[in-house]
Amino acid sequence: MQHKADPCYHQPSEACLLDGQLPLPAAIIRQSALHNNIHWMQTFAERAGVKLAPHGKTSMTPEIFKRQLVAGAWGLTVATPYQATIAAQAGASKIILANQLVGQGNMAIIANLLKQGVTVYCCIDDATNVQQLSAFFSQQDCQLPCLIELGTLAGRCGLRHGDACLSLASEIQQSAGLLLAGLEFYEGIAKDEAGVRQWVAEAAALCLQLQQHFIAPRTALLTGAGSVWYDIVAEVLKSLPTQHGMEVVLRPGCYISHDHQLYAKAQQQVMARSALAQQLGGDLQPALEVAAFVQSLPEPGLAVLGLGKRDIAHDAGMPQVLALYRDGKRLPFDPANGQTERIMDQHCFWPYPADLQLQVGDVVLLGGSHPCLTFDKWRSIWLVDDAYRPLLAMETRF
Amino acid sequence: MQHKADPCYHQPSEACLLDGQLPLPAAIIRQSALHNNIHWMQTFAERAGVKLAPHGKTSMTPEIFKRQLVAGAWGLTVATPYQATIAAQAGASKIILANQLVGQGNMAIIANLLKQGVTVYCCIDDATNVQQLSAFFSQQDCQLPCLIELGTLAGRCGLRHGDACLSLASEIQQSAGLLLAGLEFYEGIAKDEAGVRQWVAEAAALCLQLQQHFIAPRTALLTGAGSVWYDIVAEVLKSLPTQHGMEVVLRPGCYISHDHQLYAKAQQQVMARSALAQQLGGDLQPALEVAAFVQSLPEPGLAVLGLGKRDIAHDAGMPQVLALYRDGKRLPFDPANGQTERIMDQHCFWPYPADLQLQVGDVVLLGGSHPCLTFDKWRSIWLVDDAYRPLLAMETRF
Repeated sequence: MQHKADPCYHQPSEACLLDGQLPLPAAIIRQSALHNNIHWMQTFAERAGVKLAPHGKTSMTPEIFKRQLVAGAWGLTVATPYQATIAAQAGASKIILANQLVGQGNMAIIANLLKQGVTVYCCIDDATNVQQLSAFFSQQDCQLPCLIELGTLAGRCGLRHGDACLSLASEIQQSAGLLLAGLEFYEGIAKDEAGVRQWVAEAAALCLQLQQHFIAPRTALLTGAGSVWYDIVAEVLKSLPTQHGMEVVLRPGCYISHDHQLYAKAQQQVMARSALAQQLGGDLQPALEVAAFVQSLPEPGLAVLGLGKRDIAHDAGMPQVLALYRDGKRLPFDPANGQTERIMDQHCFWPYPADLQLQVGDVVLLGGSHPCLTFDKWRSIWLVDDAYRPLLAMETRF
Repeated sequence: MQHKADPCYHQPSEACLLDGQLPLPAAIIRQSALHNNIHWMQTFAERAGVKLAPHGKTSMTPEIFKRQLVAGAWGLTVATPYQATIAAQAGASKIILANQLVGQGNMAIIANLLKQGVTVYCCIDDATNVQQLSAFFSQQDCQLPCLIELGTLAGRCGLRHGDACLSLASEIQQSAGLLLAGLEFYEGIAKDEAGVRQWVAEAAALCLQLQQHFIAPRTALLTGAGSVWYDIVAEVLKSLPTQHGMEVVLRPGCYISHDHQLYAKAQQQVMARSALAQQLGGDLQPALEVAAFVQSLPEPGLAVLGLGKRDIAHDAGMPQVLALYRDGKRLPFDPANGQTERIMDQHCFWPYPADLQLQVGDVVLLGGSHPCLTFDKWRSIWLVDDAYRPLLAMETRF
């Protein structure tokens, strides 16, 4: 398979992503930052006394999945049945499908994984879906582990009230082919810390009810937490006297690459409020960048860069120029002047400072906001050392 | 290679994308609409007396490239050197890289294609780039055909003045390894029809000067036109007494799938103003849709659909529900009620009319705006008949 950063274009081993010898644009992950982030979050979860199932939807990169599992992750989280197949191929034996499982075509994928011995937990928030799943899985040689999804008014999926959850639990318990396994929630839509704390406490109380009435003597799975509020979720769940018979699993995803804007700000909040995060030492580091050429300098102070919406996220802030290189050598540059202003499919407009003597062919390194939507633009991503020398072309599986 | 719409999941041949038996979400192209669009635009170009080099960046789908070439396209247009390799593999012997060629890694890709006998035209708008290209291609066993890019103030790439174009032409003519071949422009940034007419007329006059002073007795290539103003570009270039020694090539891209919003409106304008378009009979048809399940019905009147920013464009208008199906049967539904309101990475929020008795598991067909950014979300796209039965999983090569 060829792709935008195909290793078949790899020049001799002294090549560097910053010297213009390799085709650009290219997505780049610094191995040192990647490993820092994997181990930082794994250590956080272990010290918090919870399990970690990193959300794989962010990177969909098997090489990264393997490193997360080797570092001690309990399992992986995914958003779709197709993503579950990739997580299983990368070695995950426990997978949380943090979404409803809908449609026979999708159910068949999950049934195949269950029959291979992979435990896949799916979310349910609807009685009709219970009937559909039971009709399908009662005809299979496997049982589907189900998590009831608790949502919130004006939120995304999930039942809005605890009573509805208990009622649905009763239906699941009576449905062939289904096995009630616990409760799932996503607090990322909450407005503030107080809202998150209240929601998580309610979820924990509800999960305890589910465990006592429907799941005991088995252990119930209780899972929540994206990359913004994971410290609060861990703290609340740890402090409640509800862990008996419950396994708590956090599933942040974006921490893996971190970013330069949206999640950078969120993590600053984590570091400001979480004693545990402060005690760990170090912090998450932005690991994902896109390298591109200065493609055109059509007017004074305007650079058109050779990357666009097809190469980097643009939904949560415009890409930012982090550093400049010419012939592999770094040029003096203040990243405060790196804000780009417009982006098209294959071009990005950067109003650069007049005192920079830019040339067509200079290489710019850009950071983005919201890594999920940068990862999914690439079929392979260069893993590099700190000198930006390629170590490996990591295939993505979106 | 597995992917979201992998044919390995293909159920028996009576399967249909609308009956829930295949994994969703899935991108779908109706073959009848695809062929209509290919032949409509090819016929338009032929009747207008110009050549057609469809912009391949829109679909990056070799199966579609082949059909465009078989239908009579002069060549293909691309946005990056990597895309040029895919166009060449699909059989294009003439390729317009409608962008500057920057960086040795990228130049090496184009040199390889030239040495294979593929003619690749590249754009130039910068004297430093002329030197860089000459330094590289003078060491190769090939000459690079160059198009000077004419831009406009506050536009994208391209020189802002005719004098600068003539000056750069002189430099190219004196540079080893480079061959001046003509002029390229992109009128898509112009504000209105009058602006386009004036710009195209200036480009034509300039290209005539280039031809007479630098290119004759060879023929000059003059190329412009996206999918919004192609009729005006063709009309202006046809009406000017400048075609002697010039080959005019249009390069629209989005016509291939058309869409349900942005380009639908643009084509309504074409049909209103172009006598030639009216005379052809028929019109472009929206060919690209995404099928998804109703995944959750968490509140009265709110459906969460199983697709998101990773499945469909959202930068030029929100996706619209076109039709509804249950067990493969179409449900009564007025598409005027199909506007979705919010989109996340893997979810889309649709406030549906209260009188629709939606169920989780119902299949929705959605149309989008700006097809380039829907195509690039998929590694394969189902080609279907008018009953939405799969004919072929078409691989994309982004």
